[in-house]
Formats: sequence, C-alpha cells, structure tokens
Amino acid sequence: MRISILGGGGFLGRKVAARLAADGKLGGEAIEALTLFDVVPPDPPAGARFPVHCVGGDVADLPADAIPDGTNVVFHLAAVVSAAAEADYDLGQRVNVRGTEAVINRCRKLAAPARVVFTSSVASFGGGQAARLADDARQVPTNSYGAQKAAAELFLTDASRRGFLDAVCIRLPTIIVRPGRPNKAASSFFSGILREPLLGLSTELPVAPDFAAWIASPRRAVEWLLHCASMDTTPMGLDRGINPPGLSVTVASMLNALDAVQPGASALVRRVYDPAIEKIVAGWPAAFEPLRSRTLGFSAHEPLVDLVRAFVADDLEATRKERGLA
Amino acid sequence: MRISILGGGGFLGRKVAARLAADGKLGGEAIEALTLFDVVPPDPPAGARFPVHCVGGDVADLPADAIPDGTNVVFHLAAVVSAAAEADYDLGQRVNVRGTEAVINRCRKLAAPARVVFTSSVASFGGGQAARLADDARQVPTNSYGAQKAAAELFLTDASRRGFLDAVCIRLPTIIVRPGRPNKAASSFFSGILREPLLGLSTELPVAPDFAAWIASPRRAVEWLLHCASMDTTPMGLDRGINPPGLSVTVASMLNALDAVQPGASALVRRVYDPAIEKIVAGWPAAFEPLRSRTLGFSAHEPLVDLVRAFVADDLEATRKERGLA
Repeated sequence: MRISILGGGGFLGRKVAARLAADGKLGGEAIEALTLFDVVPPDPPAGARFPVHCVGGDVADLPADAIPDGTNVVFHLAAVVSAAAEADYDLGQRVNVRGTEAVINRCRKLAAPARVVFTSSVASFGGGQAARLADDARQVPTNSYGAQKAAAELFLTDASRRGFLDAVCIRLPTIIVRPGRPNKAASSFFSGILREPLLGLSTELPVAPDFAAWIASPRRAVEWLLHCASMDTTPMGLDRGINPPGLSVTVASMLNALDAVQPGASALVRRVYDPAIEKIVAGWPAAFEPLRSRTLGFSAHEPLVDLVRAFVADDLEATRKERGLA
Repeated sequence: MRISILGGGGFLGRKVAARLAADGKLGGEAIEALTLFDVVPPDPPAGARFPVHCVGGDVADLPADAIPDGTNVVFHLAAVVSAAAEADYDLGQRVNVRGTEAVINRCRKLAAPARVVFTSSVASFGGGQAARLADDARQVPTNSYGAQKAAAELFLTDASRRGFLDAVCIRLPTIIVRPGRPNKAASSFFSGILREPLLGLSTELPVAPDFAAWIASPRRAVEWLLHCASMDTTPMGLDRGINPPGLSVTVASMLNALDAVQPGASALVRRVYDPAIEKIVAGWPAAFEPLRSRTLGFSAHEPLVDLVRAFVADDLEATRKERGLA
C-alpha cells in the first residue's frame, strides 16, 4: 500500500499522516511508503515505520513524484480556503480547479487506478440557515470556493467513470476545533470561539448566538477520510460525492459545551458583528440528512462536548507551544 | 447593442446570426455590431445592416477581438460535442472547460458586465429513460461532455455572482432536426431518422422505437437563446441554470410525425442496434418538469409535426445542396 497526501502540510493532512504512522496500515494492508506533498515539503510524521518522501511544489503544476508510480491511495486535500478563494479568484481557480485536473492527469499515468479521496465542502451547497439538505440536493454554491469544489467533484467523478482513478469526494462540514492560529477561512471563528478561550485568550464572534452550522471534529474527519480510502466504491455508482454525518449545532450550544469543559470560558467570547464574514457563512447550509453516508459505512459523530475534550487532549498543548503561550 | 457569437460557424450559431441579421435588433435595441468567432472565421449572415466581424481561433486561447471592448451580449456556443468529448478527454476539457474560463477572463476585462448566454445541455443530467426531472434536480452527468458543461455552468454562475458578467446557462434538449450531415454527437441519429428519409436516403436507428428523448426544434432553441439574451436575470438569483420547456418524445412518435409530413418516409429507417451509442444517450433524462422556465418567460414548444414541417421549410433545400443531392 503506497499513499500520497497532497496538502500534507495542512491541518488535516498532518493528522492523517500521523494516524497512518501510528497505524502502520490502511484498510488492513501494510503501508509500504508515504509521500507528503505541499507548497513547502512537509515534515514527516513521528514514528513512521515506512519510508516517508516529502515533496514541495505547486499542485497546479504537479511534480510526478508527488504521486509516485505504484501509488494506491491519494488524499487530495490541497486547496485554497474559502475567504482566500473569494479574495483572489485566479488563485482559487488555479489551485482548486487546475490543481485537481493536474491530480487527475497524473493519476491517468499510473498502471492501476488509484483511490483518490477528495475533500469537497459543505460550502459547495447553498440554502443557508433554513436548509436541511437531502443526499440528492443540488449544489448551488454561494462563493467561489464552493463552486470550485463542486466543479472538481464533477471532474473526479467523470474521471472515475472513465477508469482514470477511483474517487470518493467527501463534502466535509466545517471542521472544529482547528489547532494553531486563526486562518483565512470565513469559518475560522467557529474554531476560534472554542480554541482561544481554552488558551485563555479573548476572541470575537461575528454572528448571532443562534447561528447554526454543520460541523465535524478533526478526529471524526480523519476517521471518515480513512474510510473513504478503504471503502468499496461499487455501491456509489456514478455519484462519487458523499455528505458525511456531521453535527448541526448553534453557536450557543458550542459555547455551552465549552463551559461544560472549562467553566466560565465563554466569557472570553465577545460578540463583534462582521457582515463580510456573515455574508459568506450564512450561505452555507446548516443541516443535512446524510442517509447515504450511513449505508456506506461512515461512522456517526460524537457529542459536541466530546469534540471540545478531544481538542484539549489532542491539540491544546501543541497549539500553546506553537503560539509561544506560557 | 454589440453582440458576439462564439461558435458562430456552428449550426445554432449560424441560425442565431441569421435571425439577428433579419431582425436588426435584440430585446428592442438596435444592433450596432456583430462578431462571429469559430475555429475558422465564419461567413457573415446575409442581409445584415450592421458591421459583421469574423474571427478565427481557439476558444481556449481566446483572441481579445472575439469579444471586442463594448460587447453587451455574448452567445457562448463553442463546444466539443458529446461523442467527441467522450473519445478525446483532453480536447473536451480544453474546449468545454478551459474555453469557458477564457470567456470569463475576457469578459472580466470589459467595462460593463456582458450578458453571456451559455448553451449547457440535457447531457449534464443523468437519470435516463425513467427520469422526470424537477428544476432543482442534481446534475449527475453520465459522460464527460455533461460533466464539462455542468462545471462550466458553475464557473459562469460564480462569475455572475462576482459581477464579472451576467450569465444565463440554458440546458438545451437534443436539437432536432439538425441540417447538413450526421455529426459526432451520440444524439446525431435523433435528427438522422427525420432528415435522411426527407432527403430520400436510408438511415439507421440505433435504439428501440419506444426510446424516449427530451428534444427541441432549432426554431424554438433560437427563440429561447434570444430570450436568454434579453431577459431580466434578477429573478434567477444565484442559480443561473435553466431547464427550458422542451418536448419528451419517443422515437416512434418522431417517425409518426415524419410519416404525417411525408407518407411512408419512415420505411427508410432501418433498426440497427448500436450499444455504444445507446450507452451514451440512455444516460440522459427523457423528461423534465420545467416550471421555472415558464415563470421566466421561455416560450412553450410547438407540436412535433410542426418541427418536421419547419425543417422542410427552413433547411431541407440547403441540406440537399450542401450534400450534392439532386
């Protein structure tokens, strides 16, 4: 089993790499080699008992060794995030669209079709706060990032039908709690209102407390990505997109879970309305009815309070160090 | 009113150009200039009372004068058809995807957003013979052409939201009767079984007589395209795709209409099953419920027998000449 992670230096890429290093296998098969690709060559995960090859470059001009001959599984996580793709249209088209086409074109040259696990997004749908989307809901994106992800899904699905590769496109919910620092994603505050208070820092909430979002934890997202890599795709037929079983939560319920883990912490969250941020996130659907994901074996989500505890267990200390906090 | 037709040398492009030349105006405004763009510079339409500029080139490397400064309306009809896009993946991606991105990038440079009328396709949907698709049906294409058209819709819709242009993406049914010769579209036989017998020639039917299809006449398609060019797009909101009110017909009903216009003509149609053709067309939906198109002012379709008579009136003689038939 030979695996590549594109976007291997990112938040989820590092977590997937660490998990592969810890497990030593994927879908019951021993891992023989891992390639990590990102703009800058990523650091290899600690404790891997297989060779790890780290490659830097531009995904839209993908070097062949980012997906070496013999690769069986590609995690294609390389992307320009939502607010950045909205701010720089050309960059978003280049990385999110051209990059995916480059992945397809590289995979076409492999001797056997590789499983490609692609992280699409809740942002590829519209509908907003009132939405409760069924599995066959039409993707009507409300931002360039979502449009680019939906188009990339179309190309990967078509490439699967043609036998170039074997894709699963998982439309990830907003992932919280992200470790590290705030980023350029419009959804950054969903993590910020939990992470920053747990670090003892104040933070801003740009939307109202009853604002609802479709979320998932990093632990659950990694579980789902590994499932995408090893599941049988035959029952998916021509439709290679999947809405996983995330959680529909309000900001208020997130702050309650925060206080349950660290009493009083939500006092560090100040409400500072930001119409630019709200305009983007208000377009994303707040709930799904992900029935198909259940029949395809995607694991159910843990309760919100477990998600907060997992951040404390997995990422709080590293985040504190990374940011130079005592 | 300055207009460009990309794919101006094609079947529909020539019909739109001829209609503009005859009308001298579009949406009540006088036409000041027309540009026709295609791989080879198209011939100008007869009788135009405005300057016609004919340009040749590659749509994926679009020359600026294909859409001159000051252009108000772009008909983007340039495409690689279904069977050709299936046979040559790279060509389809280049013309159907990269070409549309080139149109967007050229339109971004115009002083005011142009109306872009884009011909998407019934082939951007799946569902097949049993389908009866609502306006919010998800596009699950069953071929590369359909995937490329659906992706192009996403980019044009996003570009509209961003204010780069003002697009209407009309998902044309299979257009019959096409004049001229059979082409590489998998749907070519839908026209062939009417056109060839009317020319006194035998032809092959690759599917069963009860095979159903979603079709429209060239006259109706031109009406719709002109409506797309002049309609108010405000009621469309973020969803710039439209399923027009075509006709759902069986092959048998087409042959009945043929015999109604020219008794006994259907005897020239021989049933020769072709699984490669059937595989492509069987994926396309055979019926829609196009309610939204009615509220947006798209005209209803005429009966099938009128469609056959219109081919005889509009295109039979020219087709006879073009093909050197007595």
